[in-house]
Amino acid sequence: MCQDCGCGDPEIVPVEVHERLLSANDRVAHHNRAHFVEHGVLALNLMGSPGSGKTATLEAMARAPGANRKLAAVSGDLATDHDAQRLRAAGIPAATITTGSACHLDAEMVHKALHDFELDGLDLFVIENVGNLVCPAIYDLGQALNVVALSVTEGEDKPLKYPVIFRNADAVLLTKIDLLPHLGVSIRNFDDAIARVMPQPRVFPVSARTGEGLDRWLQWLDEKRIRADL
Amino acid sequence: MCQDCGCGDPEIVPVEVHERLLSANDRVAHHNRAHFVEHGVLALNLMGSPGSGKTATLEAMARAPGANRKLAAVSGDLATDHDAQRLRAAGIPAATITTGSACHLDAEMVHKALHDFELDGLDLFVIENVGNLVCPAIYDLGQALNVVALSVTEGEDKPLKYPVIFRNADAVLLTKIDLLPHLGVSIRNFDDAIARVMPQPRVFPVSARTGEGLDRWLQWLDEKRIRADL
Repeated sequence: MCQDCGCGDPEIVPVEVHERLLSANDRVAHHNRAHFVEHGVLALNLMGSPGSGKTATLEAMARAPGANRKLAAVSGDLATDHDAQRLRAAGIPAATITTGSACHLDAEMVHKALHDFELDGLDLFVIENVGNLVCPAIYDLGQALNVVALSVTEGEDKPLKYPVIFRNADAVLLTKIDLLPHLGVSIRNFDDAIARVMPQPRVFPVSARTGEGLDRWLQWLDEKRIRADL
Repeated sequence: MCQDCGCGDPEIVPVEVHERLLSANDRVAHHNRAHFVEHGVLALNLMGSPGSGKTATLEAMARAPGANRKLAAVSGDLATDHDAQRLRAAGIPAATITTGSACHLDAEMVHKALHDFELDGLDLFVIENVGNLVCPAIYDLGQALNVVALSVTEGEDKPLKYPVIFRNADAVLLTKIDLLPHLGVSIRNFDDAIARVMPQPRVFPVSARTGEGLDRWLQWLDEKRIRADL
């Protein structure tokens, strides 16, 4: 339910219903987080519009030179098992969370999905959220990091138009940069827009097709993992 | 609120709250529809992912050769007045509905915005929804037609992954087809995916940049308008 996305009408849905929902989610998220920490796994909530390149980036991470990180992932989608199929084909253990018509994942969905995974020995667990630049922004799933995938084809003003998700992000993956020569946009303008909404802007321009930029992104993840281990 | 997107937890939010919300929306949508019909205006609910080319297509419609249709539009966005500014610069009377953090427009937001427009003499009124391929799908706004803008950069499987919005659409605008030479996708595969979820598939491949395909799309709108007048 999305009333904490701000779309609730307080005259219709009582405030206590909102609070009950969010606090129930937060309890399960806390439990998920304890699981990840206990097993030394860095958990990532990967969000972004439909077609922003979330799955393609994970595939590219699996085939990156010297990739020796052990990844696993759950992919949230209204329908189909496509993303998890693609990830498994790339060698990443993956499962699907089918949401029906729900617009975001919640902590309970992730908790149930975790029962299918062996977390011991994993370096990174990616929760690939439902393609949506609005609703996933405010649901804690137990992740250590929030990352937004933003495709250069979506336009330079998207961080300004969807500020909530960017404000709460630890990093932005600026995807599909191989298409830049065919678009009237620039990385610099994306950077500027992101800097206006993100308190500590951190942008990784990447191309899943060419592999460009993946090294910096993977290095940052490795640093985050080492710090989490300390 | 999005529990009618299916993401509500019936254990937390009572069914009667869902029903009250939707029936309140439907009453206002009915009122909006009566307004549009009374003034002989074809109302369009234009939906799609962030960056799918909704605004760019409207701009292209305004500058299409022989464009003599009188359009007006409201653009829904969490933040910024960008889209309405772009539309006004293209000669389309336009206003913004700022939703804050809400993930879709509802009938009441549209109703309030309509007070700023003179509907008499208009041919087409476009309600440009919040960029989101999930939540806008099930809110009636009083429109005559539901149209989904899907960019070729989003990938061929999106109709299968977001079936609700495509199932309820009267037409799909397949946008940014000028980028096809740089992507590993085809119009045929998009058509196939759309045909699997849409009861009466109707797809208009268009490029706002080159103007390709706009003639067929505008012709279809004109036919719909004439029929609405009969």
